[in-house]
Amino acid sequence: MRAEIIAVGTELLLGQTVNTNATYLSQGLAELGIDVYFQTVVGDNAARIRQAIELARTRADLIMFTGGLGPTLDDLTKDALAEYLNRPIHIHEPSMVKIEALFSSRGIHMVESNRRQANMIEGCDPLDNNAGLAVGNALTIDGTHYLLLPGPPREMKPMFDGPAKAWLREILGEERKLYSRLLKFAGIGESSLEQAIIDLIEQQSDPTIAPYAKEGEVALRISTKAISEQEAVVRLDQAEAQIIERVGKHLYAREDIPLEEAVIRLLRGSGRKLASAESLTGGLFAELVTNIPGSSGEFVGGVVTYTNLMKHKLLGIPMAQLEGPGAPGAVSESTASLMAERVRELTGSDYGVSMTGVAGPSESEGKPVGLVYFAISELGKPTIVHTAQMSGSRGIIRVRVAKAVLYRLWQVLNKVE
Amino acid sequence: MRAEIIAVGTELLLGQTVNTNATYLSQGLAELGIDVYFQTVVGDNAARIRQAIELARTRADLIMFTGGLGPTLDDLTKDALAEYLNRPIHIHEPSMVKIEALFSSRGIHMVESNRRQANMIEGCDPLDNNAGLAVGNALTIDGTHYLLLPGPPREMKPMFDGPAKAWLREILGEERKLYSRLLKFAGIGESSLEQAIIDLIEQQSDPTIAPYAKEGEVALRISTKAISEQEAVVRLDQAEAQIIERVGKHLYAREDIPLEEAVIRLLRGSGRKLASAESLTGGLFAELVTNIPGSSGEFVGGVVTYTNLMKHKLLGIPMAQLEGPGAPGAVSESTASLMAERVRELTGSDYGVSMTGVAGPSESEGKPVGLVYFAISELGKPTIVHTAQMSGSRGIIRVRVAKAVLYRLWQVLNKVE
Repeated sequence: MRAEIIAVGTELLLGQTVNTNATYLSQGLAELGIDVYFQTVVGDNAARIRQAIELARTRADLIMFTGGLGPTLDDLTKDALAEYLNRPIHIHEPSMVKIEALFSSRGIHMVESNRRQANMIEGCDPLDNNAGLAVGNALTIDGTHYLLLPGPPREMKPMFDGPAKAWLREILGEERKLYSRLLKFAGIGESSLEQAIIDLIEQQSDPTIAPYAKEGEVALRISTKAISEQEAVVRLDQAEAQIIERVGKHLYAREDIPLEEAVIRLLRGSGRKLASAESLTGGLFAELVTNIPGSSGEFVGGVVTYTNLMKHKLLGIPMAQLEGPGAPGAVSESTASLMAERVRELTGSDYGVSMTGVAGPSESEGKPVGLVYFAISELGKPTIVHTAQMSGSRGIIRVRVAKAVLYRLWQVLNKVE
Repeated sequence: MRAEIIAVGTELLLGQTVNTNATYLSQGLAELGIDVYFQTVVGDNAARIRQAIELARTRADLIMFTGGLGPTLDDLTKDALAEYLNRPIHIHEPSMVKIEALFSSRGIHMVESNRRQANMIEGCDPLDNNAGLAVGNALTIDGTHYLLLPGPPREMKPMFDGPAKAWLREILGEERKLYSRLLKFAGIGESSLEQAIIDLIEQQSDPTIAPYAKEGEVALRISTKAISEQEAVVRLDQAEAQIIERVGKHLYAREDIPLEEAVIRLLRGSGRKLASAESLTGGLFAELVTNIPGSSGEFVGGVVTYTNLMKHKLLGIPMAQLEGPGAPGAVSESTASLMAERVRELTGSDYGVSMTGVAGPSESEGKPVGLVYFAISELGKPTIVHTAQMSGSRGIIRVRVAKAVLYRLWQVLNKVE
């Protein structure tokens, strides 16, 4: 089954609202095995809504609308579809009773336009709205299915997950469902990953293998349509095995978790504790790690030593290391090493990590933007220091450094496990 | 001028990515006075991309694409448009040089497909990509304008705001231009702000006053179309004066800067230095502040004391303050106060700020999720402690605390100025 999502609302076209409804519905439809070929956004304009319906009719079996079911004169979705289908609109009595009861319980006078929220196109099944007043509509005409859902996400989501999905499942009957698995990679770029498995991507038709783009993360999604979960698992396992053979050393998770969560889990497993000393990242590393609920069991904290004086005061690094003729400087292998060691000692942790470098926009200590040093200090072992010349804006360099530290730490922790 | 935005990417149709690009572009086009009539999302499929182009040609003068400019075989936007326009594709040499230089500087072998990112449809103007490799394309054919921008927001936004807007302004020529001013507010919620000036929003037709939605920030945009800047400034000043009369004490900037930048500027003006001690925010405050280029002159750094032991070890707070029968606990007014004072003393700064509380997902010390204490310590003055019961997810609570500290600090700094 092919679906098209039509979001109705001028606020979307003005950029005042993000169309998260389309994302939510697309996810839900994918889980039901329904392919979404187009998403459309159209304003609160009857002619253009009709135009969008006409077009969607030619390229989809299921047309899902969000928005335009409310009480105002701008809410035109039901009217436009009714007109397109040449069907009358009636009041859905149970919804009307609910609307009247709400207004009378609040002691507010109900304005006439609120009745519009109980409107039903003739022949529709009503979809209950547990979080609001506008009743949803579902109907099938000439082989095309129409689902009308409200615009506010807190009303739309429960209506979709409840009555709308139930209605769709009945229509789908015993069709095959889509099963998919996400593989997450670190320490490898998106294009290198794709290059390494390009033949698999191109040859595979079932399961399909697709790169999955997400800010600062590299992932693959393996998907197959199957009658049962067992059948799907066998096929997904086979495809995964082929991928692991090529790039398995970069695979850090078989579910949608960030790298920092994989690191926290490894620390948890080994009962070890981590602390950080940050310069150019300014707290970003700590922020990423503490964004994982429950990370205080493994990540104790650390210092943000954004100036040389703080590296001296908070970490006890000699000023002669940081400044003056012949000093290695703040951006150096030896300073990275000292920062990681000192924060580990200071906090009494098993691991200390450090990041120092030039985030930009201009050079520092005569060293170029993007030059970074980061270190991992482990109790009783020699400190490991890495260096890299990174590119991108100030913000991107900061994220990349933090992720690079996480990747190297993940490698270290994987070995000790 | 009528515009249509076509976002290309199967990840959007699978609901894996939210189409924030369409929102960003719609806002930007509205500011230029260009009306967006439709937004479309289409997958990585050449035939369906062409179909979307054909349709957009019938209903828009400007077609803006996002996505599909990358190196992989899924990146089809340029090819699809070139085929539709029946134009050849050439390599843009300066982009090719940039791509090769990047790979050679990193010592990585460049895979052949990366050349695709330098592709240009014949007759295009190139749009520089300052945050990535794929060059943008801009061209006008038979009265229709086409703009091709990359998909990743961190590449798309600077390309749109820089070269793409400049290109569009040239096309718009001597029409009346849209002038607008952004007013940024802190310490007031979006709905409270709107409520305070709802009559102005509704009455004003020129200039228009519109709330401006942006993650964690509250802003108003005043816009007017005028022949000259002088004409615009007079009208914008009048509208601004009416707004300031109502909510002026929350106005922290008349330009699009985050609150942390306003705080850094005030510190710079008074020659004072700031340090932070964070518990529940885990480094987020430091990260926000150090994200402002040049902030090391005013923000020296601080500590992330995510556990009680770290509050003791790094800040010297007595364990008896933090744990045990009758102890105030980590989440308390007195601990917030001590944290701010100790980090100020430890770093030798003029101001120390602290954040402690329960970010969730579960309660801590028998205190509810969302309960936070934050403090501002200033040399020679009594420490100010604030408390709040915040709502939202773990991530939202963390951001709200950091922003609340910035707002209170902004108030303090405004008085000393």
